[in-house]
Amino acid sequence: MGGYTRVVAVRARVSSPTAHRLSLYLRELERLAASGRATVSSRQLGVAAGAAEAQVRKDLGVIGTAGLPGVGYVVESLGDAIRAAIGVHRSWRAVLVGAGNIGRALAAYRSFREEGFEIAAVFDADPSVAGRRISGTKVQPMDALAECVRRQEIEIGIIAVPPESAQEVADRLVAAGVQGILNFAPRRVRVPDRVPAIGVDFRAALERLVLEVSQRDEGPVPARRRGRSA
Amino acid sequence: MGGYTRVVAVRARVSSPTAHRLSLYLRELERLAASGRATVSSRQLGVAAGAAEAQVRKDLGVIGTAGLPGVGYVVESLGDAIRAAIGVHRSWRAVLVGAGNIGRALAAYRSFREEGFEIAAVFDADPSVAGRRISGTKVQPMDALAECVRRQEIEIGIIAVPPESAQEVADRLVAAGVQGILNFAPRRVRVPDRVPAIGVDFRAALERLVLEVSQRDEGPVPARRRGRSA
Repeated sequence: MGGYTRVVAVRARVSSPTAHRLSLYLRELERLAASGRATVSSRQLGVAAGAAEAQVRKDLGVIGTAGLPGVGYVVESLGDAIRAAIGVHRSWRAVLVGAGNIGRALAAYRSFREEGFEIAAVFDADPSVAGRRISGTKVQPMDALAECVRRQEIEIGIIAVPPESAQEVADRLVAAGVQGILNFAPRRVRVPDRVPAIGVDFRAALERLVLEVSQRDEGPVPARRRGRSA
Repeated sequence: MGGYTRVVAVRARVSSPTAHRLSLYLRELERLAASGRATVSSRQLGVAAGAAEAQVRKDLGVIGTAGLPGVGYVVESLGDAIRAAIGVHRSWRAVLVGAGNIGRALAAYRSFREEGFEIAAVFDADPSVAGRRISGTKVQPMDALAECVRRQEIEIGIIAVPPESAQEVADRLVAAGVQGILNFAPRRVRVPDRVPAIGVDFRAALERLVLEVSQRDEGPVPARRRGRSA
């Protein structure tokens, strides 16, 4: 950890909106690092994340970092601090359930590996799919899931099955002992408190978009809905 | 529109959290319709969306529907009302930019068509990809984008390119005249107020998950972060 960014050994609880902004700061820091920039202001991080400067400083304070007035934050060490705070400084063993279109795309998704997600095994309920390879990993039948999670100490389960199977798959992942679930099925899954589940819902995103487009068609947009970016 | 659900001809502005809950109610209504159920209570819709009964009634009031005490809502007509309120009762012409893993998965994604999204054309900056077909649609070079959007009256642009190209693609889509953007690149894009952009950020979802898993490891979770589902 270098220079102008003080990183202290605290690990505060981070709220969901803060977590999302930390992700956006990290994207901006990665972009700046790639272009050779050494320091960054809270203002610039705020622009990238759609947040006010004061919010940026508060968020970065929560994870124990502070910039130096007139200098800002050191790009590299702030990136390290955010990665450590989020937990993406280490690798995570995951299984993917569902070898359909979305599952295959996820297995090949560059960013999963960049984030330290190692897809150790792939499962599918369809016997005609079992045995095939996707992105180099052999698809296994669902019967083998519990044993695999236990033996390979799998931490994360990724659900990429049709909505009607999502809850059953979530139940099996939880019973097998995963610590968290990433759910790409367009259906909420119920999980115990100890196993966080995050949903990535394409359909909800589509619906939000068409709703917003329909509303723009109908006239001027109230101020509170202005200036969105995503 | 039948029986117990009154649908009045209002079209209120719907906030983003309400929009998301409407999507979740719609998922539940589709599930109930598939299993032959005729009516549903606000309580059950609330359970499916993680919302209180009063919130459900308020949300459905915003779109001009009301249940009958002791009976609830008619599954079919409430579904129609939500689809009309969101704008998924009609079809939307979309172009997809990016024919990589995510783009190919999206092109094949069943739910896009179910939501009335017709991917009319696919574009990619890589000349070696142009000319190939994905899900039956020929990949075109980026040069052809503006003309295609204008001539085919494309309404929605879907971005599935690497993060470093996302802003340029968004600019080109806006210049060509799309009315809304769905952005799957892990980078926010800046767009004018008149063109809503909704981001589906896998990396942010991953990071939220590992953060939550890390925090669960560290001890009991404060009450306000409890009982999440996704």
